[in-house]
Amino acid sequence: MTTVRVGLLGCGNVGAALVDLLEGHGTAIETRAGIHLELVRVAVADPSKPRPPGLDASLLTSDPRAVVDDPTIEIVVELIGGIDPARELVLAALNSGKSVVTANKELVASFGLELHAAASASGAEILYEASVGGGIPLVRPLRESLAGERITRVMGIVNGTTNYILTKMTEDGTSYGVALEEAQSLGYAERDPTADVDGYDAAAKGAILATIAFGQAVVAEDVHREGIRTITPADIARARRLGFVIKLLVVAERDLEDRISVRAHPALVPATHPLASVRDAFNAVFIEGDAVGELMLYGRGAGGRPTASAVLGDLVDAAHGRAGGDKRVSMAALPPARLIPIGELQSAYYLSISVLDRPGVLAQVAGVFGEHGVSIRSMEQHGLGDEAQMIFHTHDVREADMQTTIEKLEQLPAVDRVGTLLRVVGDADL
Amino acid sequence: MTTVRVGLLGCGNVGAALVDLLEGHGTAIETRAGIHLELVRVAVADPSKPRPPGLDASLLTSDPRAVVDDPTIEIVVELIGGIDPARELVLAALNSGKSVVTANKELVASFGLELHAAASASGAEILYEASVGGGIPLVRPLRESLAGERITRVMGIVNGTTNYILTKMTEDGTSYGVALEEAQSLGYAERDPTADVDGYDAAAKGAILATIAFGQAVVAEDVHREGIRTITPADIARARRLGFVIKLLVVAERDLEDRISVRAHPALVPATHPLASVRDAFNAVFIEGDAVGELMLYGRGAGGRPTASAVLGDLVDAAHGRAGGDKRVSMAALPPARLIPIGELQSAYYLSISVLDRPGVLAQVAGVFGEHGVSIRSMEQHGLGDEAQMIFHTHDVREADMQTTIEKLEQLPAVDRVGTLLRVVGDADL
Repeated sequence: MTTVRVGLLGCGNVGAALVDLLEGHGTAIETRAGIHLELVRVAVADPSKPRPPGLDASLLTSDPRAVVDDPTIEIVVELIGGIDPARELVLAALNSGKSVVTANKELVASFGLELHAAASASGAEILYEASVGGGIPLVRPLRESLAGERITRVMGIVNGTTNYILTKMTEDGTSYGVALEEAQSLGYAERDPTADVDGYDAAAKGAILATIAFGQAVVAEDVHREGIRTITPADIARARRLGFVIKLLVVAERDLEDRISVRAHPALVPATHPLASVRDAFNAVFIEGDAVGELMLYGRGAGGRPTASAVLGDLVDAAHGRAGGDKRVSMAALPPARLIPIGELQSAYYLSISVLDRPGVLAQVAGVFGEHGVSIRSMEQHGLGDEAQMIFHTHDVREADMQTTIEKLEQLPAVDRVGTLLRVVGDADL
Repeated sequence: MTTVRVGLLGCGNVGAALVDLLEGHGTAIETRAGIHLELVRVAVADPSKPRPPGLDASLLTSDPRAVVDDPTIEIVVELIGGIDPARELVLAALNSGKSVVTANKELVASFGLELHAAASASGAEILYEASVGGGIPLVRPLRESLAGERITRVMGIVNGTTNYILTKMTEDGTSYGVALEEAQSLGYAERDPTADVDGYDAAAKGAILATIAFGQAVVAEDVHREGIRTITPADIARARRLGFVIKLLVVAERDLEDRISVRAHPALVPATHPLASVRDAFNAVFIEGDAVGELMLYGRGAGGRPTASAVLGDLVDAAHGRAGGDKRVSMAALPPARLIPIGELQSAYYLSISVLDRPGVLAQVAGVFGEHGVSIRSMEQHGLGDEAQMIFHTHDVREADMQTTIEKLEQLPAVDRVGTLLRVVGDADL
């Protein structure tokens, strides 16, 4: 039986669950995988705080370098999160030949290539299954099971907080504000919800998925990003009447010339699409490939134990020194992403406009659409006293044409307000 | 660039798709994986039949030993199917140190341990991602991503033909016979549909999934098996009124003492369960683990190209000589399965009974349930002239008690016919 010495950086929610799993499943791992994983050092910000009962207090240290610099430690698990000091610590570990398992999506999405290069130079591994989709196997299936596949699109619900908020708004008709408060009181959303509701978290995960799926280096900043703050219960109700639900999606696509587009934004998804039935804080990633057709991987995208389960899978791999596809697909030498400018994207759109309820307004509005080549698939109008609400669902148009249309609409005296603009996805065959 | 020489046994639907993928995606595989896969020999029953345009006719042979015995071939892909002569050919290849990739569920479900032992003895690999769930990554995620997980239940729709038939019966109200004919005319079902509709195919796949998930050697014959021939549109309509859909499931469970149960049978699934919305010929496997919670993997479970995609993923792995978990989880030395006798299983049941519509019959029938400790959760009765139909939905009871109840019910003079008995799954928390 080989013993592999493991050091842990950070022992919050996920760390405590990992300690618990190593304790409870240690024997099973020995039987199945033929290795003994021994936790030998745990660096935490405050060693005096209460820790999980299975954790021997003598392993605790407040100095993360005591983990990273310990020559007897073979694998470092990084669960601190954020860029500083995680980046420096992970690089130090990799440079000294230690393999690193991390759940840190920000770090991987912004500095993935640097980490892969460091790992490659020292013969170590960098593994991050837990950085996207919690316990859902995504990184390994994309990299290994689909190694021979030309993936054309990856589309996912990868942020549980916003999916919970949108589910509440959809099912209970509550406002964004009320649903957010509920998510906060349940611990799904932070007090400052920016990272979730403005799409930063989804964008980082999108960068990681796109990099693996397309073999081009995508960083978080490459990802076009829109949040869910402006979505109203009225938008959701109207979308439903049109046969759609509203979800915050990450969409990564590749065109026939291998140019790619990666974006995180709310979108209208057909109610019959498998992603539409992903409720509450669940995550799911829908993959389309030339040969494999359509795949969906679904599960708990966050939480201590599901995330720790993914970390443990990577740990077993790293302990065998034969992990993932790092050696087979040289992630350290990926070409930079060839991004399609957002203005060139084609999409169908949902747009709501508030107008003064006067004769001739529809003709004016429709004229602006027509002038910019935006073809309308369906339109409905509802009078509200002096005002009327117009809802447009367009055919596929260029993003740039849609944006120009909106600018011009805003200049019409009869238009009071141009409301939510949302993309419609996944209905190519409707 | 390393060149790996590949031999192919069988070139039907999946084989032709594989030839096509190797042709079309060869460059992409070279870029991503750093290897060149060269198809050097293809054994087919009739070399004079037309073959895919990308296949050089000079590679064809009618002698499978010309593939298996060729010392320059490093990997053999077996797509013949069935036991004979596939078993002998695969063993010969493994014994001579060649790795084997197969899509043959029958072979793996009945002789998996023998194949693993032969591979292990010669240092070769035996890979079979394509044997369950077509293009859906299942074998690798179960074995590797969930290496640290205690899996408690695997429940899946793994036979596309029966799922297509049941979807038609549910959505169009057609009879079993009509739906079967439709499936046959679309090429989803064979002329002799036994393997699909009597659950043999699902049982074989269940044996493979249970073996990997639980680390105990389960063979196809260990799997309790019931088919869908007796399901009526009336059963489906009644199930729907109770909030369920009927699916042919494979269910593999482990109890707290690590005893397992594996069975393939039609079952009532709550309409809100993710498996309920898997329609037509799609497949999906729902996995429950101690830490990871609930996972579902969904996709095209059959068809040439999706299956060939899974074969290609395994081929890349085998070419790197570092495939799957074979070295880490010694599949060659698994203990035999500790099976729970079917009579000891606990389940809720759906049962329909035809009775004579006379006073006192309900009391008699309910008395039989009560005598054998079968507690009734809901019951409905519909009169049909002299006859009445009683539909029972029970609480969790022992299978043996349910079977005795049915025997006694059949002896009641007022009972005309005991109809379909179906298990109800997945509603632990309803």
